[in-house]
Amino acid sequence: MTQQLDSDVHFNVLTETCPSRTSLARIANKWTAMVVIALGTGRMRFGDVHTTVQGISAKVLTGTLRDLERDGLVARYAYPEIPPRVEYELTPLGRTLHTPLRALGSWAEEHIPEVLAARETYDALR
Amino acid sequence: MTQQLDSDVHFNVLTETCPSRTSLARIANKWTAMVVIALGTGRMRFGDVHTTVQGISAKVLTGTLRDLERDGLVARYAYPEIPPRVEYELTPLGRTLHTPLRALGSWAEEHIPEVLAARETYDALR
Repeated sequence: MTQQLDSDVHFNVLTETCPSRTSLARIANKWTAMVVIALGTGRMRFGDVHTTVQGISAKVLTGTLRDLERDGLVARYAYPEIPPRVEYELTPLGRTLHTPLRALGSWAEEHIPEVLAARETYDALR
Repeated sequence: MTQQLDSDVHFNVLTETCPSRTSLARIANKWTAMVVIALGTGRMRFGDVHTTVQGISAKVLTGTLRDLERDGLVARYAYPEIPPRVEYELTPLGRTLHTPLRALGSWAEEHIPEVLAARETYDALR
């Protein structure tokens, strides 16, 4: 369903071959969401992100940050110190993503009582 | 970081044991996002969702719809006809989720040129 309009190409995540789907696959991910929400407070050291996003493994966090850096959403700053210091910050593009991901996190926080009630009803009937 | 404020419990998706994280894990998912975006247009038959969300397998779609139904986000209507007709629709709660997920999809569609350019730069340097 890629549409041609005024010589602009329009992207559609519901189209299997649309490149925008590769971006949606990356950002519609719980770890991505949590890391971007955490970095919304400002530049952070790796260890601080690791502490803030509770329960994320160092391996998953490393991969998530690398993928976000590759997509231009996070900037990585490595300082030649001993011990080495590495900091991460949302880029201007990453900050535009913070808004919808923070909205998704807030939705989960606001509506979890309704979701839990729905699960209880569903499970009781089966 | 569950906070106690005015005797209300506050949920925080960054807290490992917070129940809101189970909801975020469900909604911050590419297939959930695409199915909810598709159902934003109204009640649909299973086959129409399957066609609209291109590339989703029947198995993944069945599981995604069941999980959304369990969380109270999608209502399932089964009509005793031959052949059987099954339709799905966002619930009022599901419609409140459509807004942030549609925003996430739109972000991917709007910013994919920048993301692709960033990937090219990143890969060229490594």
